[in-house]
Amino acid sequence: MKNKKTIFVPATSANVGPGFDCLGIALDMYNEIEYDLVGDSGDFEAEIIGEGQDSLSNGKENLVYFSFKKTFDFFKKNPPGIKIKQINRIPLSRGLGSSSAAIVGGIVLANEVLGNTLTINEMLKIAVDIEGHPDNVAPALLGGFVISFKENDDIISKKINVPEQISSTVIVPNFQLSTKDSRGVLPKAVPMEDAIFNISRATLLISSLITEDYEMIKLAFADKLHQNYRATLIPGLLEVIEEAEKMDILGTALSGAGPSIIIYHKTEAKFNVEKLTNILEKKNIFSKIYQLKPINNGFIVK
Amino acid sequence: MKNKKTIFVPATSANVGPGFDCLGIALDMYNEIEYDLVGDSGDFEAEIIGEGQDSLSNGKENLVYFSFKKTFDFFKKNPPGIKIKQINRIPLSRGLGSSSAAIVGGIVLANEVLGNTLTINEMLKIAVDIEGHPDNVAPALLGGFVISFKENDDIISKKINVPEQISSTVIVPNFQLSTKDSRGVLPKAVPMEDAIFNISRATLLISSLITEDYEMIKLAFADKLHQNYRATLIPGLLEVIEEAEKMDILGTALSGAGPSIIIYHKTEAKFNVEKLTNILEKKNIFSKIYQLKPINNGFIVK
Repeated sequence: MKNKKTIFVPATSANVGPGFDCLGIALDMYNEIEYDLVGDSGDFEAEIIGEGQDSLSNGKENLVYFSFKKTFDFFKKNPPGIKIKQINRIPLSRGLGSSSAAIVGGIVLANEVLGNTLTINEMLKIAVDIEGHPDNVAPALLGGFVISFKENDDIISKKINVPEQISSTVIVPNFQLSTKDSRGVLPKAVPMEDAIFNISRATLLISSLITEDYEMIKLAFADKLHQNYRATLIPGLLEVIEEAEKMDILGTALSGAGPSIIIYHKTEAKFNVEKLTNILEKKNIFSKIYQLKPINNGFIVK
Repeated sequence: MKNKKTIFVPATSANVGPGFDCLGIALDMYNEIEYDLVGDSGDFEAEIIGEGQDSLSNGKENLVYFSFKKTFDFFKKNPPGIKIKQINRIPLSRGLGSSSAAIVGGIVLANEVLGNTLTINEMLKIAVDIEGHPDNVAPALLGGFVISFKENDDIISKKINVPEQISSTVIVPNFQLSTKDSRGVLPKAVPMEDAIFNISRATLLISSLITEDYEMIKLAFADKLHQNYRATLIPGLLEVIEEAEKMDILGTALSGAGPSIIIYHKTEAKFNVEKLTNILEKKNIFSKIYQLKPINNGFIVK
């Protein structure tokens, strides 16, 4: 590609235990986008390398292009012809924010082409407009640990820096789970006591992260609003969480809508992740392990 | 009273907006207990001045004595004969933690008599054993803004200091509302989206308090889990909250199980509280106004 700038968008993990649908965290695995402005307005071509290279669209249904185009729509402008090269590292439909990364990538790309006229909050608004919810796109844009929600027409977000000491190990099963299917198993109503359970743990998690109170973080990683229901789609999930809790870790959670399982721990912690993947293998689920560090920056253009 | 020491236990306000049943805050209005060790084991006599002087028990059903006795039971010891003088400032059954103050007062009194052998966590455990839930007793013991919940046999609590700039104005209606009645109107199940609503606002509240992000605190004071239901018992509540939100304040919430309404604001803020009490007066609810400052210490013995 002739253009020297490359856009890097990080993977993200939503929910972070008790924070169903409102917490998310950015991780140091990036999808890259290179680009060239060529051809006439409306022209588009993509080369995709890595995750999704055989399944993702090279044409105008490509989510990066769709989001690029949406951003030009926001300004009531026609996009120039563009050719992109995507280097995808974030596995698809595993609960690691691959679609959010594509959306944010397309918006950031448009912003580059438009001469950096968008604020982060405008980008967030466009991204939520496309994605429907802010819990992955917000950390992909802002980095760190982010609380986010829609309030009328606004997107409210608050970023908290993740302490340097915290790292994560992610078990990524070899099957995809669509967010739609993973939402389909959730009830429309939940026991009041389960709602209170999650509020208490989520507030403890946030406050303990900010104050770096690691003993308390361990007590905060618990959920009653989505993981138990989704365990029907991810055999072994609850056993993995139970087994992991006996180890030298901070907490375990379903990453986003799953099926990935994220284990937060101190960077230097030693624990037997194979003991956890073995539980899944007995259910015929085979996995890859990723060592991912939470990062306090979102997308990068360089 | 011959004994020179006096026990001061603060008022508390539970829930603090979105934190239903797990957040609480200590306020600078104190009930006092003076005491004399007189008579034989099991002897008890109380003089009560102020709130509840005509309705609270002077005998062994007195909640201070009940909690005093419970603490001795904890150590399998017989309590000495005791005479107390209570100066009660916290209005009863208004959602300001009067019963929690009595319970904590009795436990602290026992701890004094026993020679300060209890840790704060032991006191918290005994208090929750009596009260059933930690959201008022925890801030009465610890001070500040406290996240608390039961986990198996343990009580988990995390205290956050309230910024010096924050104060509160409390509208205390002239009728009592028992916690039992106020709980009776709550549903056993709630919409999932309401649970998520409260998690997002409660986490925003905690993080914004710690980082002193006042613009965000304003967005965090909202609730869908209890206030709307309880509004049936407190005519005008929702109108007061709506009207208050237009003023120069940080947030408004039902205090505990009500009927008091607490308005958090910056110490120097100017707003028309009469406009709010007028809304209640039109519904034939007359109120007293208390200016109460959150405090970062719990009970005091001096």
